[in-house]
Amino acid sequence: MSGTVPTRETIEAAHKLVAPFIHRTPVMTSQFFNRLCGAELFFKCENFQKIGAFKARGGLNAILSLPADKLVNGVATHSSGNHAQAIAFAASRVGAKAYIVMPENSPLVKIRAVEEYGAEITFCVNTPEARQEAVDQIVAHTGATFIHPFNNYEVIAGQATAAKELIEDTKDTLDLIIAPVGGGGLISGTALSASYFSHGTRVYAAEPEGAADAILSFKSDKIEKAPYVKTIADGLLTYLGDKTFPIIKEYVTDVLLVSDEEIIAAMRFLWERMKIVVEPSGAVPLAAIIRNKEDFKGKKIGVILTGGNAHLGKLPF
Amino acid sequence: MSGTVPTRETIEAAHKLVAPFIHRTPVMTSQFFNRLCGAELFFKCENFQKIGAFKARGGLNAILSLPADKLVNGVATHSSGNHAQAIAFAASRVGAKAYIVMPENSPLVKIRAVEEYGAEITFCVNTPEARQEAVDQIVAHTGATFIHPFNNYEVIAGQATAAKELIEDTKDTLDLIIAPVGGGGLISGTALSASYFSHGTRVYAAEPEGAADAILSFKSDKIEKAPYVKTIADGLLTYLGDKTFPIIKEYVTDVLLVSDEEIIAAMRFLWERMKIVVEPSGAVPLAAIIRNKEDFKGKKIGVILTGGNAHLGKLPF
Repeated sequence: MSGTVPTRETIEAAHKLVAPFIHRTPVMTSQFFNRLCGAELFFKCENFQKIGAFKARGGLNAILSLPADKLVNGVATHSSGNHAQAIAFAASRVGAKAYIVMPENSPLVKIRAVEEYGAEITFCVNTPEARQEAVDQIVAHTGATFIHPFNNYEVIAGQATAAKELIEDTKDTLDLIIAPVGGGGLISGTALSASYFSHGTRVYAAEPEGAADAILSFKSDKIEKAPYVKTIADGLLTYLGDKTFPIIKEYVTDVLLVSDEEIIAAMRFLWERMKIVVEPSGAVPLAAIIRNKEDFKGKKIGVILTGGNAHLGKLPF
Repeated sequence: MSGTVPTRETIEAAHKLVAPFIHRTPVMTSQFFNRLCGAELFFKCENFQKIGAFKARGGLNAILSLPADKLVNGVATHSSGNHAQAIAFAASRVGAKAYIVMPENSPLVKIRAVEEYGAEITFCVNTPEARQEAVDQIVAHTGATFIHPFNNYEVIAGQATAAKELIEDTKDTLDLIIAPVGGGGLISGTALSASYFSHGTRVYAAEPEGAADAILSFKSDKIEKAPYVKTIADGLLTYLGDKTFPIIKEYVTDVLLVSDEEIIAAMRFLWERMKIVVEPSGAVPLAAIIRNKEDFKGKKIGVILTGGNAHLGKLPF
């Protein structure tokens, strides 16, 4: 694994590596949202990506970057969310073994999705310590490579390819791009791509009030935890890593907060008006634009819709 | 209004007329559904169409085909569904007045959608007689032109443009196209387009068991009503018209039935796997393919996803 922040060349190489395995997802527009926000919005539909989320990109790049003598021992991670599917999916593409540690109370639909890709699941109790211990044991026994969901430069370079495509497909006309921030893999990759492949496109991070660690970290200049964690945007609960934080600090313009009510309203708007399924975390950037629309008036805005793995049996509306 | 079945030239002219006002909706594919059905499926996403349904096409063509001295008096229709929005939308595009009769118990979201386009709504009690009487009165008082939701050759020619695009965008490689049948506007237009613009693409109609009038009509060779009407596919409740039935009889290969359970399962599959919002009526063709997949093995199948105006507060799952 590389030990340095992805360069322009690294991200271009990552894009070549992952492109055969992923969708070049469409960029959609909506006159309704343009009118509502008084701006021009360009939605990068990563909800249509393989596994239903952008994380397929990072997982693929991390696995495809491994040398053959490492790959033969497989890969391992812990996740109950999209990263688990991303690693299981990516490993299946190259015929590698994937070991996924999942909390024993994970939703059945997520377990099934990981199983479908032929990954080996180990269940554990749902604490960070138990998860890490289970992965450490697997790595010790099998020689598998642990792939962190965001604090990993190959993962960051993979996620960066979404913004690279968005910039290309909008012909580098965007004033800004906005993406959600959880651990920071996507937003740091997005910020790097804007820096390398656009002329002056600014990058904003959007985060739920109920997981407001990035804004604290951004202001205090060190990695902070959220004062409390309670939000429907269950993909954004984690705090930043020592690889993602410095990139965010250097390249991101600002961090914007939104409430769960605003997330749910934006999510419902997307479903009703654009007829697309977006998960709560994926609606966070649109919610931030709607909340701050006076500041963004007249701008051309790229919006990364990160995923569509919503639980249809448990909708908030 | 023309009194003859749309010709190849009529449909080409309709396409030119409506194209500036509508989306050329994307054709999506899904490896999941290809595997599930053992066939190659091409989904024409009319859920992304203006007003969220293909009916924008027919409404536009009917209104744009009116001579100026008719248009000046406006247009009128009765509908609680997508046709109401289609007429309100199409009239607003050309600055014409739209009079829409809606049952007084219509969902607020549908009423709002019609109002947003500036149409004048008249409420009536929810019987076919009361609706028709209300429209007749409006037509008598205003000189507005009544636009039937399906039994109208301009509407049929407009709906035909969806299949024309689908055939063009799949380079005329489809073995068959399948679309739902209610009053028959879409399926008759689809069948005409397949006949004019493809080389041997067959057309199948799909219909709910709880509104099984088309299959009866198809077999008995006269317009029949359904033995009972009870289905979640609320866009398909009506029976065929004297303009749509002869076209269906001549150009459609077969009518396939599906149960409400199958419709709901197909709809949920579309939402979960393709991340798109499709209304119950729009999931009927996919349900028919899944039910009859042994018959369609190895085929290239065009599937018209007719609309995405699902009621999020009242989902069947």
